[in-house]
Amino acid sequence: MRTAPMHIASIGTALPGPPVDNTTLGKLFGVSDEWVDLFVGTRTRHFARDPGTGEVLCSLADLCAEAADRALAAAGLDASDIDFLLLSTATPDALLPNTASLVADRLGLNYLPVYALQAGCSGALQVLDLGRSLLSVGHRTGLVIGGDVTSRHLDPSRSGSSIPTEELVNYVLFGDGAGAAVLTAEPLGERIAVRALLNQFAGHGRPTGQGVEWRGPADQETGRPMLFEDYKAVEESVPPMSVEILWELLDGLGWSLESLDHLLPPQLSGRMTQRIVDHLAIDGVRETSCVADTGNTGNALPFLQLHRLLPEFETGQRALALVVESSKWTKAGLALEKI
Amino acid sequence: MRTAPMHIASIGTALPGPPVDNTTLGKLFGVSDEWVDLFVGTRTRHFARDPGTGEVLCSLADLCAEAADRALAAAGLDASDIDFLLLSTATPDALLPNTASLVADRLGLNYLPVYALQAGCSGALQVLDLGRSLLSVGHRTGLVIGGDVTSRHLDPSRSGSSIPTEELVNYVLFGDGAGAAVLTAEPLGERIAVRALLNQFAGHGRPTGQGVEWRGPADQETGRPMLFEDYKAVEESVPPMSVEILWELLDGLGWSLESLDHLLPPQLSGRMTQRIVDHLAIDGVRETSCVADTGNTGNALPFLQLHRLLPEFETGQRALALVVESSKWTKAGLALEKI
Repeated sequence: MRTAPMHIASIGTALPGPPVDNTTLGKLFGVSDEWVDLFVGTRTRHFARDPGTGEVLCSLADLCAEAADRALAAAGLDASDIDFLLLSTATPDALLPNTASLVADRLGLNYLPVYALQAGCSGALQVLDLGRSLLSVGHRTGLVIGGDVTSRHLDPSRSGSSIPTEELVNYVLFGDGAGAAVLTAEPLGERIAVRALLNQFAGHGRPTGQGVEWRGPADQETGRPMLFEDYKAVEESVPPMSVEILWELLDGLGWSLESLDHLLPPQLSGRMTQRIVDHLAIDGVRETSCVADTGNTGNALPFLQLHRLLPEFETGQRALALVVESSKWTKAGLALEKI
Repeated sequence: MRTAPMHIASIGTALPGPPVDNTTLGKLFGVSDEWVDLFVGTRTRHFARDPGTGEVLCSLADLCAEAADRALAAAGLDASDIDFLLLSTATPDALLPNTASLVADRLGLNYLPVYALQAGCSGALQVLDLGRSLLSVGHRTGLVIGGDVTSRHLDPSRSGSSIPTEELVNYVLFGDGAGAAVLTAEPLGERIAVRALLNQFAGHGRPTGQGVEWRGPADQETGRPMLFEDYKAVEESVPPMSVEILWELLDGLGWSLESLDHLLPPQLSGRMTQRIVDHLAIDGVRETSCVADTGNTGNALPFLQLHRLLPEFETGQRALALVVESSKWTKAGLALEKI
């Protein structure tokens, strides 16, 4: 590949409303907070809708624009410096206009390419991947955003007893949020060089691990759940896929496991992340996770992790981010060096 | 920009079910076929759902896989030759897995980057644009797909009298379909060289021209229409924006208007396309349109036009495609040369 150097100059993030704890969540959907703690291992999450009343607190575009504003400010740039915008989400505010266009308008961007990607957990890596291609053809500075408002799939009129288990897990697993990064051809701001990027569909012949439906006016009740999670398949597949991603990145760069300083593991749930980290069994590497506080925020997550990494990422250090999208199985990862 | 040469090697298309004429459509939604003919000027369209019963005939993934299979066969390639897949739609089968992943699975693609774009009329140009960047970083052969199944927004239980006019226009404007192209770094098959590509968001500060909503379990009835079209704004803005796209492409290449052989104008509706062509007032250029037969098929349309262009596109000839996305206003265009 003839990709040009790419650097992460800054990160911005946005989380809606106050943190919602397991006791509150348990009461709302009729599950015990002990079950949430034991099974999911996530302490709090944020919701863009009041989970009790359904009142909309903010939109995905609100969250994405806020994260992007913070990333621009942190890089000391303004909208006129940006050459392209890429935004990824699984849960767009509308099918049209796409959320990327709404955010571009908010930020005051105009006369530039704006792309909206539809993706799950691997979306943040996909916008970084496409961002690298766009920098490689001559753009100098890009803005990439990932965000999700999954709470639109949590029906406040339903309680735990009427929700099938494979759907209930989604009620306690997810949180809403957004994250953004400014990408530059030349080192700037945080001076994080992207040394390698993996973005690989690996779902041929494999059943769907996770599904999120939408409804249009012509849709009859099909009986198909609006949220679906094959938690067993996810539990079985994500740890070994994480190992594959780890070694594909390390081998491609000729990096040893011992040369790693930081690891950003997949953030499917508090428990799952713990199992993956145990499975990877890397000594002397600092883990950067946020799922216990934010829940699984989908497209926002790698940006939230990168944001937490910033204060402890020292010049000369290396970091690896591993992401598995379980919807139709995508392997994604990122190798970073602070320069 | 340091983009590498890109060629369109082949085109494949797919339209669902039999053509639905204005008389049938008029009866279903309580509008007169004379009104459809006068106002929209589209004779037939295809639907992936039976518009009378709502029965699903095929999915968007079905249509996209069929179009892609045909494009691959026309290029004499098979799935193992493909380095990346880009698919664009406004109307994905599900939010997750995205339709691109479902189509990749159907085609037997694996271990490659797969991207799903959320876009309206400019989507076909956006996948071509990103495809060019991916070829520029070293990929050799890519598959791009655009498709829409807008009929999921046509509620068969409603009739014309209960549908507000700004929504009714969508009931008669759109059709379902998909199109695909094989992109190559080296000339192959149809040997169509992409000489210039425009993909420019131009919606800052402008009200939305077209909207398509989706519904999740937590959505209450907001009163906001699921389909929205500011037909006046579209009518007013699209012709001058088409002129801007035309001249941006010609000026960028140093091509004269007289050197053009073929024009693929925006396909918003039969009437609108006629007005745009009249507005452009280009003598001696052959127009390639399909909207009168297919309706506005959104992300599929430029591929359907390119498919019609193929038998009449002669070596040494030039063609221009113009696309305006009115959702949040994107200008897009394509300059082609048969080599």
